[in-house]
Amino acid sequence: MSLLVVGSVAFDDIETPFGRAERIVGGAGTYIAWAASYFVDDISIVSIVGEDFPQKELDALKERGADVSGIKIIEGGKSFFWAGKYHLNLNARDTLVTELNVLADFDPVLSPTESNSEYVMLGNLTPAIQKSVIGQMTKRPKVIALDTMNFWMDIAMDDLRDVLGHIDLLIINDEEARQLSGEYSLVTASEVISAMGPKYLVIKKGEHGALLFGEGQVFFAPALPLTEVQDPTGAGDTFAGGLMGFLASRDHISFEVLKQGIVCGSAMASFCVEKFGTEGLRGLGTIEVQHRLDKFTQLVNFESPIL
Amino acid sequence: MSLLVVGSVAFDDIETPFGRAERIVGGAGTYIAWAASYFVDDISIVSIVGEDFPQKELDALKERGADVSGIKIIEGGKSFFWAGKYHLNLNARDTLVTELNVLADFDPVLSPTESNSEYVMLGNLTPAIQKSVIGQMTKRPKVIALDTMNFWMDIAMDDLRDVLGHIDLLIINDEEARQLSGEYSLVTASEVISAMGPKYLVIKKGEHGALLFGEGQVFFAPALPLTEVQDPTGAGDTFAGGLMGFLASRDHISFEVLKQGIVCGSAMASFCVEKFGTEGLRGLGTIEVQHRLDKFTQLVNFESPIL
Repeated sequence: MSLLVVGSVAFDDIETPFGRAERIVGGAGTYIAWAASYFVDDISIVSIVGEDFPQKELDALKERGADVSGIKIIEGGKSFFWAGKYHLNLNARDTLVTELNVLADFDPVLSPTESNSEYVMLGNLTPAIQKSVIGQMTKRPKVIALDTMNFWMDIAMDDLRDVLGHIDLLIINDEEARQLSGEYSLVTASEVISAMGPKYLVIKKGEHGALLFGEGQVFFAPALPLTEVQDPTGAGDTFAGGLMGFLASRDHISFEVLKQGIVCGSAMASFCVEKFGTEGLRGLGTIEVQHRLDKFTQLVNFESPIL
Repeated sequence: MSLLVVGSVAFDDIETPFGRAERIVGGAGTYIAWAASYFVDDISIVSIVGEDFPQKELDALKERGADVSGIKIIEGGKSFFWAGKYHLNLNARDTLVTELNVLADFDPVLSPTESNSEYVMLGNLTPAIQKSVIGQMTKRPKVIALDTMNFWMDIAMDDLRDVLGHIDLLIINDEEARQLSGEYSLVTASEVISAMGPKYLVIKKGEHGALLFGEGQVFFAPALPLTEVQDPTGAGDTFAGGLMGFLASRDHISFEVLKQGIVCGSAMASFCVEKFGTEGLRGLGTIEVQHRLDKFTQLVNFESPIL
């Protein structure tokens, strides 16, 4: 099935306790597409870059089966740029630079093929842009998933509340869930948020795993305990990409399938954080990905204790 | 099989954002014994209290099948007392008062029955006391489990390293594992710690669940997402009690059985935090405990995704 990815494609400068990388390719759309490409072939990316963006990066995504014709290249423009530095424990980071550049004028216009997509992943963007994409869909997609952040809750809460009424799956982190709901307990937060519209809610807890709420059920998937985490940048987007890629590959939505999707997202995120930028997501083989998925099964599988 | 519990039996003053309780019964030994009592009948508690300690509390443990004759009552003495106040998010707390009282002179002398126990749970005490208990065992117990804390790593590391060479299972939290190993990654920490002696290592991560390392394998069990946590006091001891109670009830140790034990520990901890002090651990029925265990299975159970 077809997956439409709308999100930033950008340059990042990243410093972690394990090293630094300058002007590497990043952005939510990039991470989502790379992760999803291991599960589904029919991916379209809608984004915007400057003429400074390397063609070989677009070609690499094309080789993974992604249609990059929806990535608008602005002549004379500069790509979105973010620079950040992680704290020692990697649990927090400081943003050093944010240059919106061409992203400031991003106003996606979908092609007929794109607007006919069955699965839609809206990366973190202004709620108004996310809403505009949904409004351009010619038929109701099977799943519209959305990521957002505290910043939009602070400055565009009405728009955000509006778009939440039109999606199926919200993918946010614990801090965002708490701010959006005004509740500390994630269980209570999930109830408040599901009343805003989304049938399913995923709360990402970084190294502490992810929770799925929906259909009156709860599911939890841990993050894989890793010997070394090099760079957490993009892990949340990668998670969303693995999840949505898996859903699009199954074409049948249920709580059970979503659970498997969460595991796929967690597996891809574990590859992501092992290396800098998108490096950990490149050149993986099917066997390698399957092996990582199996590791998750082993990690949490147990025979139910009977008293 | 017989379970010997050595740990404090005490009074606590507790303040959380949800309320306060004064001079309620607490202590590691108390929480461990209450939790274990839902899995195994043959429990002996070795501890020390003052004459201020209520007989009805000892009777309540006796009714749960625990032998409390090893709890020494010091005439004219005062029981160990701890007062603490939790921060808003319950993830941190300030100790307001610690009065060791009779615990300062705790020097356990095991009865012949106690020294013949097959399972031993050493609650957080000075490593020298823990070592003394191990030295009094007349035959090698099937499992010796131990809890400790950063304080002993600061002031009695040599003693702690010594006792770690004589146990099977170390149960500590993530912060303690990092301090003990000098490693931030819990995977690397587990390797350093297992080289110190314990065949199995459990790293508790509070609301983020628990990891089990051993036999070259890793297992993770989440904490149950709860609508309301009233009081986290004793959750770690309760976890250890549920785990060791289950092991003693099975009388067969393997990684598989330990996994189930971790789930039992997590289930009992979830009861514990829902109410103040030991209240959540009292008066549970078998069906209630089994139902909670089943919830954990539902929470993490998924069909392995195949690419």
